[in-house]
Amino acid sequence: MRTAICERLGIEFPLFAFSHCRDVVAAVTNAGGLGVLGAIAYSPEQLDAELTWIDREVGGRPYGVDVLVPERLDSSASDRRAHLMDFIPDRHRDFVIHLLSKYGVTAPVQPLTARADEFGRRVTAAGATGLIDVALKHPIGLIAGALGTPPPEMLARARDADVPVAALAGTVEHARRQAAAGADLIVAQGTEAGGHTGEVSTMVLVPQVVDAVAPVPVLAAGGIASGRQMAAAMALGAEGVWCGSVWLTTEEAETPAAVKRKLLAASSLDTVRSSSRTGKPARQLKSAWTEEWDHGQESPGPLGMPLQLLVAEGAMARIGAAAEKGQPGALELVNYFVGQVVGQLDQVRPAREVVFEMISEFGDAVERLERLSASG
Amino acid sequence: MRTAICERLGIEFPLFAFSHCRDVVAAVTNAGGLGVLGAIAYSPEQLDAELTWIDREVGGRPYGVDVLVPERLDSSASDRRAHLMDFIPDRHRDFVIHLLSKYGVTAPVQPLTARADEFGRRVTAAGATGLIDVALKHPIGLIAGALGTPPPEMLARARDADVPVAALAGTVEHARRQAAAGADLIVAQGTEAGGHTGEVSTMVLVPQVVDAVAPVPVLAAGGIASGRQMAAAMALGAEGVWCGSVWLTTEEAETPAAVKRKLLAASSLDTVRSSSRTGKPARQLKSAWTEEWDHGQESPGPLGMPLQLLVAEGAMARIGAAAEKGQPGALELVNYFVGQVVGQLDQVRPAREVVFEMISEFGDAVERLERLSASG
Repeated sequence: MRTAICERLGIEFPLFAFSHCRDVVAAVTNAGGLGVLGAIAYSPEQLDAELTWIDREVGGRPYGVDVLVPERLDSSASDRRAHLMDFIPDRHRDFVIHLLSKYGVTAPVQPLTARADEFGRRVTAAGATGLIDVALKHPIGLIAGALGTPPPEMLARARDADVPVAALAGTVEHARRQAAAGADLIVAQGTEAGGHTGEVSTMVLVPQVVDAVAPVPVLAAGGIASGRQMAAAMALGAEGVWCGSVWLTTEEAETPAAVKRKLLAASSLDTVRSSSRTGKPARQLKSAWTEEWDHGQESPGPLGMPLQLLVAEGAMARIGAAAEKGQPGALELVNYFVGQVVGQLDQVRPAREVVFEMISEFGDAVERLERLSASG
Repeated sequence: MRTAICERLGIEFPLFAFSHCRDVVAAVTNAGGLGVLGAIAYSPEQLDAELTWIDREVGGRPYGVDVLVPERLDSSASDRRAHLMDFIPDRHRDFVIHLLSKYGVTAPVQPLTARADEFGRRVTAAGATGLIDVALKHPIGLIAGALGTPPPEMLARARDADVPVAALAGTVEHARRQAAAGADLIVAQGTEAGGHTGEVSTMVLVPQVVDAVAPVPVLAAGGIASGRQMAAAMALGAEGVWCGSVWLTTEEAETPAAVKRKLLAASSLDTVRSSSRTGKPARQLKSAWTEEWDHGQESPGPLGMPLQLLVAEGAMARIGAAAEKGQPGALELVNYFVGQVVGQLDQVRPAREVVFEMISEFGDAVERLERLSASG
């Protein structure tokens, strides 16, 4: 199968794999899809090292990088402040301390440090710019921005480097703005997706976005982890699919063991859109963390982005460590960004096998439709 | 196109149209699909009259009836109570009076009457049984239950009459129970659907239900109002589609003019899952009614079903009447059960034309998939 996007990007299958793990990115790219590395977890130096590793693995096959880019890349005063942590209210700090204590997470509660500042700054203008600069020094085939409209500076730099820009949209209006701003590819992401999502489902959103931004090509995201779902997405008018959750239970995935077990056991009812990890609604496993922040009587309510991200990441680092040691309270709290397709994920497989099975099932689904359509 | 379901039910297209309006039911059945009349709005006598009318219109072509059937058809004490209204707390009555006054709905606020009791009782066991009995006296091709697992009495009566039973499910677990109980057809309904829905999207739910209940055939519901969406649903493994919202803006629809204008103007972001109309989460147009009940400071919170249904229907009858007269506050309050596809509905057309356009677009979508699949 080769859509126009396959031609443009030099890939065999219009199957895009978003992952925070370089091994997944390389495996999918080498299997004929296009792996896209989520850069949020990395400093510019780390990102450079990861991409250098991928460059060696994929032998010139195309891959991409995804950054969380705010709509404006001006360096506002807040970007230069030394300690973002200073803006976190006491009751939010206290609530985290209370939660860790209530659930018996015994890792020492230290004041969040320079690492947290660094982390929070990456989703600010200056941080995103640094990551984009690093990414464009590598032979990437796609750069994606997961928040808002790609700013002109990003588009200009990408165009200079001849790298297509993808933009993620959860509403028709956002998609229209992104296409007008010059995005080469729109990822229309339904509410069932993992991570930051809007409210409209993939089934409803994709055809509206396809019609609104034509002739700009659209990838469908959200609810896609099988060949049937890929065929459905393309029946809606998408030129390809953008998948994230399905890689979390692959052999290559970075997902910690305790989280992987939770993912494999979860049903499609076990996710929730919550602002408790990043300050913006993001779909993730329902856990004591999301329940306490969203419905707990003592909850001060989540802060905005990036402050809630700092609050959450500091705590989650400790929770994750305790969960890996099997602490029961930490296992209740720990969660992960994942879409409703988590209910389909019940075994650990190589990413390459996932790609081939999706493509094979895609073919079967199309053949079934042909038969139904012909008999009439 | 003829799936196994088309053979079984004697229809040309596996396109099921849920509507409260007999004209829509007859038009879709006569166009080659299968119209299903929602019986909740009718007393047994009224239902009998409606079905007699449909019988004359469709000349033997198959149509169906949908009843809100509670899982158990035992006649509990509460069914026999004279006045369900007696169970509504004062603060809920007061809140309705407050809302009508705040929004300037000047229709007189009368105590809810025998009509409300009658209405509420229809969603109880005794009420549902009465509607089922009436329905099975007509030459219907399908009987559907929209709440829970069809009770054994309903299945037995339908089987005696040789009428297949469809059951609506919003989770895999419900679908499994319904198939085990003997349902002939499962309607897997995603969260984007109008009316009572679960949380899982159509894209995610349908393949899981198809696999869980095989070989029982599955219809997809939620997010389907075009041929592309029909093709997508069938790529997911469904044998057909069950649509409700798309008929609300047809020429034949019962929808009041003020509501129709709101539906035509709404985007896919303008719906909400709220318990404020029936006591169970049901997707509907976001309006001052849903906002006040779900987020208003004075709101006592919705009651359960059927009590909230009584509270809401009494008020909505007055609000609807005032909205038709153009009262601005009533226009803010008025709403309607509708799915996220409302964003696609922007013109009034005959139901027959909607059917033919969906089938034609379905064919185009399948052809496009064939082309993409072949070039590779």
